[in-house]
Amino acid sequence: MKELSRQRCHGGWQCVYSHASESTGTEMRFSAYLPPQAGHAKVPALYFLAGLTCTEETFMIKAGAQRLAAELGLMLVACDTSPRGLDLPGDAEHWDFGVGAGFYLDATEAPWAPHYRMGRYIGEELPALVEAQLPAAADRRGIFGHSMGGHGALVTALRQPQRWQSVSAFAPIANPVAVPWGQKAFSRYLGADTSRWGEWDASLLMERRPYPGTILVDQGLADAFLERELHPRALQDAAGRSGQSLQLRLHEGYDHSYWFIQSFIADHLRHHAGQLAA
Amino acid sequence: MKELSRQRCHGGWQCVYSHASESTGTEMRFSAYLPPQAGHAKVPALYFLAGLTCTEETFMIKAGAQRLAAELGLMLVACDTSPRGLDLPGDAEHWDFGVGAGFYLDATEAPWAPHYRMGRYIGEELPALVEAQLPAAADRRGIFGHSMGGHGALVTALRQPQRWQSVSAFAPIANPVAVPWGQKAFSRYLGADTSRWGEWDASLLMERRPYPGTILVDQGLADAFLERELHPRALQDAAGRSGQSLQLRLHEGYDHSYWFIQSFIADHLRHHAGQLAA
Repeated sequence: MKELSRQRCHGGWQCVYSHASESTGTEMRFSAYLPPQAGHAKVPALYFLAGLTCTEETFMIKAGAQRLAAELGLMLVACDTSPRGLDLPGDAEHWDFGVGAGFYLDATEAPWAPHYRMGRYIGEELPALVEAQLPAAADRRGIFGHSMGGHGALVTALRQPQRWQSVSAFAPIANPVAVPWGQKAFSRYLGADTSRWGEWDASLLMERRPYPGTILVDQGLADAFLERELHPRALQDAAGRSGQSLQLRLHEGYDHSYWFIQSFIADHLRHHAGQLAA
Repeated sequence: MKELSRQRCHGGWQCVYSHASESTGTEMRFSAYLPPQAGHAKVPALYFLAGLTCTEETFMIKAGAQRLAAELGLMLVACDTSPRGLDLPGDAEHWDFGVGAGFYLDATEAPWAPHYRMGRYIGEELPALVEAQLPAAADRRGIFGHSMGGHGALVTALRQPQRWQSVSAFAPIANPVAVPWGQKAFSRYLGADTSRWGEWDASLLMERRPYPGTILVDQGLADAFLERELHPRALQDAAGRSGQSLQLRLHEGYDHSYWFIQSFIADHLRHHAGQLAA
């Protein structure tokens, strides 16, 4: 693991790292904010998964999370949204598929399967690396994300609830098998057999097996993608059927942007800090 | 004035506007954050001037200022760093001169004089527009900025102290007549006669006539531009000679970035809110 930069921020350090990833077969970058408390002890780590077209920088620059993370003693980790630099056929033709659009799953179809394994990367490889190389406590992991990354956070925690002690999402793609973004990505990464898609759909996973903790989800009601792509109601219905504790908050006037995220980031950090301290 | 966007943020509105500027003869953009309090009353407005290469977006995205501005009831206004789209000879050859590098002064030399009048734009035109079109109180204006914009904020307030009730700066170019960035820009915008440069130099202005209020300046000690370009000691010396009340804070380990700015933004907003409420 190489440290590409390290800058003082709120008494801690804002850093960028790169490493050769087994999961993707590429060099991957991630950002980490190390709070002041990480200077003398292991701290809980909270992973953020960003949305379509974003990189490991987006959340750190736009969400305004470091101030409160420093106060709460939370490490923040933000990864990239796909492998890069592969030049696979068709990987750069669409903003919502391929580069910048890995959907945090493990592809099974050619040519994606050997590289587009972001599910394994987030679920296993990145936490193992962070816990080996940075002062992150291995038994206190949280995960959250936005849009495609909200989908990724929910799915990652629902698939391996024993590995994730807290989870939340901003405007997640809550039922990808039922919407255009999800259908486009899943049909290419996972193939035409839709019976296999449910392994990567938060609403379908939650209906089968609820996550053992409250899940916080914020959604803006002026979000241009709400009706077509996000479907928080499907998540709410699944929670109702399975007994999942879900706090879904709908916010009048807020859209899909990081202005929305920064408006409610403090509630998410406190949600995670509470569960990770418990 | 055209409203280009308007998005909910922390209970208020994050907006972008454009207008035809008399000062520059171009279309100029600015961003404004309207806090919730601006929905029912005029509020104090705090103007931020950004550094070299930045735009009207930079501060709003990177400084993390909106949360506390919403709490304190401060409007934030961030303008561009120069006119754009003129294609004057040589205006795009250097990152530290011309486009993105207007230095917040009024040029006297060809071909810059008819357009590079950012001094007048910030000092007069933009506040008049904001106060006519947005719920900004005309008698409670604050100004601050970073690097080239820290220079701009100090100079703007020192030149017209009756118009600005509060002023602060992050890592300002504190004595531009004595450093490479300032000499390059001033020799081109203002000509070879260095006796005219002092009208736009914070340390020289402050030595002649202190600002009637405390000025807050933060400076990182790991700032790569500190020794060569910034010279906060010149400002401190000028303050000592003129009796200026100056709070210069030096921060171990912090650099020139917005990670530094976001670490101390809350202190600046409280400094301004205190003076603007008085």
